[in-house]
Amino acid sequence: MTMKEFGKRVGKGSIVIWPIGAVEEHGPHLPLCTDSIQPELIAEEVAQLTGALIAPPLRYGNCGSTSKFPGTLSLSFDTLRAIAHDVISELARNGFKKIVVLSGHAGRLHMAALRAAAEKVVEDRDVKIMVLSDYDIAYAMKDPDIPEDDGHAGMIETSRVMAIKPKLVKARPKAFHPKFPPYQVLRSYNPHFPEGYHGDPRKASARKGREFNRFIAKELARLVKEM
Amino acid sequence: MTMKEFGKRVGKGSIVIWPIGAVEEHGPHLPLCTDSIQPELIAEEVAQLTGALIAPPLRYGNCGSTSKFPGTLSLSFDTLRAIAHDVISELARNGFKKIVVLSGHAGRLHMAALRAAAEKVVEDRDVKIMVLSDYDIAYAMKDPDIPEDDGHAGMIETSRVMAIKPKLVKARPKAFHPKFPPYQVLRSYNPHFPEGYHGDPRKASARKGREFNRFIAKELARLVKEM
Amino acid sequence: MTMKEFGKRVGKGSIVIWPIGAVEEHGPHLPLCTDSIQPELIAEEVAQLTGALIAPPLRYGNCGSTSKFPGTLSLSFDTLRAIAHDVISELARNGFKKIVVLSGHAGRLHMAALRAAAEKVVEDRDVKIMVLSDYDIAYAMKDPDIPEDDGHAGMIETSRVMAIKPKLVKARPKAFHPKFPPYQVLRSYNPHFPEGYHGDPRKASARKGREFNRFIAKELARLVKEM
Amino acid sequence: MTMKEFGKRVGKGSIVIWPIGAVEEHGPHLPLCTDSIQPELIAEEVAQLTGALIAPPLRYGNCGSTSKFPGTLSLSFDTLRAIAHDVISELARNGFKKIVVLSGHAGRLHMAALRAAAEKVVEDRDVKIMVLSDYDIAYAMKDPDIPEDDGHAGMIETSRVMAIKPKLVKARPKAFHPKFPPYQVLRSYNPHFPEGYHGDPRKASARKGREFNRFIAKELARLVKEM
Amino acid sequence: MTMKEFGKRVGKGSIVIWPIGAVEEHGPHLPLCTDSIQPELIAEEVAQLTGALIAPPLRYGNCGSTSKFPGTLSLSFDTLRAIAHDVISELARNGFKKIVVLSGHAGRLHMAALRAAAEKVVEDRDVKIMVLSDYDIAYAMKDPDIPEDDGHAGMIETSRVMAIKPKLVKARPKAFHPKFPPYQVLRSYNPHFPEGYHGDPRKASARKGREFNRFIAKELARLVKEM
Amino acid sequence: MTMKEFGKRVGKGSIVIWPIGAVEEHGPHLPLCTDSIQPELIAEEVAQLTGALIAPPLRYGNCGSTSKFPGTLSLSFDTLRAIAHDVISELARNGFKKIVVLSGHAGRLHMAALRAAAEKVVEDRDVKIMVLSDYDIAYAMKDPDIPEDDGHAGMIETSRVMAIKPKLVKARPKAFHPKFPPYQVLRSYNPHFPEGYHGDPRKASARKGREFNRFIAKELARLVKEM
Repeated sequence: MTMKEFGKRVGKGSIVIWPIGAVEEHGPHLPLCTDSIQPELIAEEVAQLTGALIAPPLRYGNCGSTSKFPGTLSLSFDTLRAIAHDVISELARNGFKKIVVLSGHAGRLHMAALRAAAEKVVEDRDVKIMVLSDYDIAYAMKDPDIPEDDGHAGMIETSRVMAIKPKLVKARPKAFHPKFPPYQVLRSYNPHFPEGYHGDPRKASARKGREFNRFIAKELARLVKEM
Repeated sequence: MTMKEFGKRVGKGSIVIWPIGAVEEHGPHLPLCTDSIQPELIAEEVAQLTGALIAPPLRYGNCGSTSKFPGTLSLSFDTLRAIAHDVISELARNGFKKIVVLSGHAGRLHMAALRAAAEKVVEDRDVKIMVLSDYDIAYAMKDPDIPEDDGHAGMIETSRVMAIKPKLVKARPKAFHPKFPPYQVLRSYNPHFPEGYHGDPRKASARKGREFNRFIAKELARLVKEM
Repeated sequence: MTMKEFGKRVGKGSIVIWPIGAVEEHGPHLPLCTDSIQPELIAEEVAQLTGALIAPPLRYGNCGSTSKFPGTLSLSFDTLRAIAHDVISELARNGFKKIVVLSGHAGRLHMAALRAAAEKVVEDRDVKIMVLSDYDIAYAMKDPDIPEDDGHAGMIETSRVMAIKPKLVKARPKAFHPKFPPYQVLRSYNPHFPEGYHGDPRKASARKGREFNRFIAKELARLVKEM
Repeated sequence: MTMKEFGKRVGKGSIVIWPIGAVEEHGPHLPLCTDSIQPELIAEEVAQLTGALIAPPLRYGNCGSTSKFPGTLSLSFDTLRAIAHDVISELARNGFKKIVVLSGHAGRLHMAALRAAAEKVVEDRDVKIMVLSDYDIAYAMKDPDIPEDDGHAGMIETSRVMAIKPKLVKARPKAFHPKFPPYQVLRSYNPHFPEGYHGDPRKASARKGREFNRFIAKELARLVKEM
Repeated sequence: MTMKEFGKRVGKGSIVIWPIGAVEEHGPHLPLCTDSIQPELIAEEVAQLTGALIAPPLRYGNCGSTSKFPGTLSLSFDTLRAIAHDVISELARNGFKKIVVLSGHAGRLHMAALRAAAEKVVEDRDVKIMVLSDYDIAYAMKDPDIPEDDGHAGMIETSRVMAIKPKLVKARPKAFHPKFPPYQVLRSYNPHFPEGYHGDPRKASARKGREFNRFIAKELARLVKEM
Repeated sequence: MTMKEFGKRVGKGSIVIWPIGAVEEHGPHLPLCTDSIQPELIAEEVAQLTGALIAPPLRYGNCGSTSKFPGTLSLSFDTLRAIAHDVISELARNGFKKIVVLSGHAGRLHMAALRAAAEKVVEDRDVKIMVLSDYDIAYAMKDPDIPEDDGHAGMIETSRVMAIKPKLVKARPKAFHPKFPPYQVLRSYNPHFPEGYHGDPRKASARKGREFNRFIAKELARLVKEM
């Protein structure tokens, strides 16, 4: 899209979705870009359902419990907040009135950084901003097939990647349920889940993944329309 | 306690609890210092049960949805993170090996700031740090008397203040259940809950408050001992 | 005080006093909270004399020459400036027109941090701000009983704590007059006053302490009224 | 690539190329992602020639003279430096010994931010870092077909995009040679090149673009091998 | 002095004096560079008496009460602290073991910024640092000719400039003694001393100025030797 | 110049030149203050030709490839940007409408810091700012006597210092042409040019230096008039 085409599109409709991922280990079976694959798909589907534009994705995020594993490339809280602030603020300057920040990664500090950036922009500009992880919607599904203790690179996430990029999914390990010491902030979480996943990847299936993705896309499209 | 007495105490036992509050509106019925009253009580009870010391409280925090109401005095995310970093780091420098950061306020960015500060200290020093809100434990109670949609200045919080400082509780308003637009970051949340509370304060009682406080203190004492 | 009561009080009179202390060693005889005890008392007395409100105290400050002793919990310059900025700025946003920042600790960088924060707020908002240590007034007394070389945890400070919290004062050591190398900035000042005090605590008395406290409170009340 | 595969690859060869782009207007004829398309292609070709890995691209950069046009989404200098620091530093932590930061955008402050980030990492870690724009090499070609005053979205850039993504190139405008006031820093450069390009896009051809791309890839592969 | 000569000099003796001034109004009679003229002279005299080297002066400082007058060019606190940190730290890296930071300007925040910078460097490196204003020594003189209420651009300062650069001193105004509201931090101090000076410039003389300068240089030389 | 004289001058003409140097090794033959000597001379000549005022010079800059040699005192990028921002911003606040930032040092990050500072000021204030190194003009001369590979402390720079301060130039070493590894960011550049210069100082002459200085001054005066 050129500058001119962009100018026209922003003039007509004015919703934009910005997909954010992470470069982060996802167990022995899922690719490092797992958190980018998912929201980029959802963004495309929501864009089709709502006419929203998609801003170029950010493929880096802030990683907490996985930050000491190989393959994780984590941004600091301040860095993520800064880039989120600049991009959201520039989208608003360009005329978008509704901005959806959609993250495939759902770490607490990661989401806090995105939210803090959005808070600053809504204080300064007249714009509506939604900040969420697609996992906020996934967990709200309360699908009976989802095991109670599902987590990072577990059944939901494995299913979703199987649905989108099946070739990137390697041999799935058996269930593992880490016990992190409650409320503690640790220098390294590696000893508590040495393979870097949490849940039961063998319960995953491409069929369930398609269901999850469809549900998330529809639900988010509905929220975007109501915004 | 003088420098010398302090030196001896840190030498013997080495757990310290640091209570953190907020200056924040809590509806028409609860005092602005509600979030300080609660963790300061819990800290004292846990100290008695475990022999921990108590660091001087911080009575200011980061407020989100209440930040535009009268009486709220909110610190920015960066300020709260900075003071939490300095205090936790100084406690570690003084020889404490286990540090419990106990917040009466449970806002997402507020807790993220405390956690980010703790992450930095565990990276730099050999110390164990627990960061939690006493509401993390309260909600984990799953007490059947707690209404499903209880929140800020609602049944739990009102009960707890009634148990600790009954004279500070004014006429309790009837139930109010705000509908915040999902996932949106707003410039002001005031229009969505004009009286600044969320839940049913009339269901509160001093008796329930004492139960909640006792449960939280016992549970936290157990976690501190296991740390 | 609830949000509503606060709203009314700010509407009527609009002076607020914010007491600031420090957690700092004060020799073998005075408690770590010495610098909080004093301005919190003065704030109460000035509030009674002037009708001012009192903001929740900050019990941490920036410590210089005592920063390497046990029991000192020092904030960095930037942290103290940040919290002072946020609190003063929030007090101004809430409608106070006259703000008195009263510090019990009088370290040069500590006071500079408070003053720098106040400078920023007066630049941004229409409000009057006074920043002082109660020792600014104490030294201006020129009471003939005060020894010439009185200092940290010396005769004045010991007297004042004896007047307020006599049980917290332990056996008073004999006079000590450190010789700090002139104008030098040192990594540690401990070798120059190994017991962490400066002056003659044995010349202190509760009677003199009451005189000092009364003088400071009256004088500050006068300044607040003239403001 | 999963965590395990990544671990093995970093163990064997240890060069990584990180492509960086920008979201920036490129005249009426080139797409906003022009600066991402080019280095991502070059990175792939250099990876094939050298066995290097490719880190996930960053599609945002710092824009100067184009920052007030529609479609530009510019990061601040500090934000770009921060993300570059974090990613380069994380690549080094993961074991890469040679890191190539390849930017499709060549703005002075943009390149300075990348270089400043790299300076910090080489100070802290034992790693070799190359920071360049593919235009550094393009201009070093001294190809006689390149017009003397070629610039932003001009003959070289248009040719290169025509070679990679011909469908994204729209009707090419005639030559334009802006006269920026020498050495001046301006609030907006728009009046000086209202269509946002600089040079003669009509002299561009896909054939020349392929030549440029091939030359840059070969030359960079050579430099990477000599590193 | 070339790199080689510098290398030799630092090897032999290792004291350096760094003069710091300000660009600041000094009443209708003294030049804007008053605060640079004085310490640069003192630095030269102390260098001759002690064999110390002189680092290139910094001619900008942080101005408080004069910051809204014409001709004042004030650095922020953070900027001054940053440059002081970098220069002092670089002097230490180059091998100087004793560093004297000598400021002609004596504003509280200005001096605090220099001191904070020095604190950081002594924490990081094995070096002795003295931070003072030459007015710290001037006031310690207790010369009976100095009027009690002498201040900015008053008798001492006027005398000193008359002794160094008599041609830069213009017609001296009569005595003025401002009454600043006690302890208040003001947006502008101009209304309280509209001509920007404080004291009695007509009592100044070149003869007294020479005495002051001689005393300060001798006293500082003595302190540097004892360092 | 006093405050009053300054006020009048700014009122009449309103151009100011701010010379910036560096404290940096310049081979075995040139003084550490080489980069200050040159722009301070040029500033004086341009001031005479144009009626511009001169702001007090800054004699410190950001050094890259020379930062590990003896005698270099380098400011960080952020420090230089901060001081440049404050000074330029204060010059604008004082009423100057045209500000020329003239640097004798031409390092890439050094110039980027000055430019970034100027960008911020033009965003905030209605003022014209020119940022350049006098070497930008020197290289634009295309004088046939300048050797192709001339650089730091080479023929041009040596000639210019010989013309201004001949006594500061020591025995000139023979030609040296370093080969820095292309595009690499290095921890230390010392091994690549152990004597800290680049070019052929023996080709220098005071006569050529005078020519260069005259050309630069005239050309800059012309640009300032056209501004």
